[in-house]
Amino acid sequence: MQLLEALNWRYATKKMNGQPVPQEKVDKVLEAAYLAPTSSGLQPFRIIVITNQELKSKIRPIAFDQSQITDGSHLLVFAAWDNYSAERIDHVFARIASERGLPPDSFDDYKTRLKNIYLTRSADTNFEHAARQAYIAFGLAIAAAAELQVDATPMEGFDNAALDELLQLPQQGLKSVTLLPLGYRDQENDWLVKQKKVRMSKDELILRIA
Amino acid sequence: MQLLEALNWRYATKKMNGQPVPQEKVDKVLEAAYLAPTSSGLQPFRIIVITNQELKSKIRPIAFDQSQITDGSHLLVFAAWDNYSAERIDHVFARIASERGLPPDSFDDYKTRLKNIYLTRSADTNFEHAARQAYIAFGLAIAAAAELQVDATPMEGFDNAALDELLQLPQQGLKSVTLLPLGYRDQENDWLVKQKKVRMSKDELILRIA
Repeated sequence: MQLLEALNWRYATKKMNGQPVPQEKVDKVLEAAYLAPTSSGLQPFRIIVITNQELKSKIRPIAFDQSQITDGSHLLVFAAWDNYSAERIDHVFARIASERGLPPDSFDDYKTRLKNIYLTRSADTNFEHAARQAYIAFGLAIAAAAELQVDATPMEGFDNAALDELLQLPQQGLKSVTLLPLGYRDQENDWLVKQKKVRMSKDELILRIA
Repeated sequence: MQLLEALNWRYATKKMNGQPVPQEKVDKVLEAAYLAPTSSGLQPFRIIVITNQELKSKIRPIAFDQSQITDGSHLLVFAAWDNYSAERIDHVFARIASERGLPPDSFDDYKTRLKNIYLTRSADTNFEHAARQAYIAFGLAIAAAAELQVDATPMEGFDNAALDELLQLPQQGLKSVTLLPLGYRDQENDWLVKQKKVRMSKDELILRIA
């Protein structure tokens, strides 16, 4: 099974060597995130792909100066919707109806049910829900990169508010949740590459009720 | 690339046919979730694997009577830590040190930094953070199932509090976040199987700054 091999191969690369990832591979990583399942198919997030070196240099200090930000060729920023709205829900289901060749009102009942849930909750609750969906896509992007033997470093450690401001995310109704620089490991200089991958014992993580 | 093929093959199966998934395949799905990267490697969640039909029958009504709960052979419940604690953090790093053959105090500075972050935040904030990590594993489990041509239905729609009580999760410091029944699609009777998979346009989901 290729996925398990890929997941064993990958690690949170600490030092990248600056070699660029071919765009074709980056596009496959993005495709995996794009295909990720999300609650009601709403895909309540965006992925910003940054190759501009100057912009990456501005992001690095607000991400604890982690060198992968600038040593990776592509920096993916996962940003979740700051809230659900009637417009956003309508927009998604208009596309689903159109793509499936269905009448525009096909999902009216379903949309009403969704709106009754989402539009009565706080923006914070909705953002947390959207963020969780983004994490599914984030996980699939990490897996896709590994399958292509592209290194990636999942990062949560950065100043979200500062990044949001730099990328003008509030104006787009978005809030950053994670970063994923893509590149290639510096085999000689990465202290983590030779460390054993450790997980909790399987009996601790997985409980069985038969 | 097998992952993309798998992600295109999968869909949120609405009707399963009752055929059991071989344990060997279930174990590979669990292995993918087990290998999922998590923040600081804490793996702040557990996966409960339920094959007991009577228990699944009790869960079905608290999950909007979704038939996949009982028609799937294995029901995975992803449950996140209700909070971070010094004990939980110490436990993980004791294992990492031990598995890497390092002195027990190797991670003392790092643990102190983590505790300064986690132990000063509310349980709610920490639970949300743990839940996000569980979603990475959830996504990888979905991908692994698809690669094995095992059907799976990602589910958030259930009464979390009722499920937590039924499975006695609070006593274990856990709160349920998602369900994933595993089984095989009922090709004849699943209305969704022949519908086109729809995602938002790539230009809308993916923004590029070059």
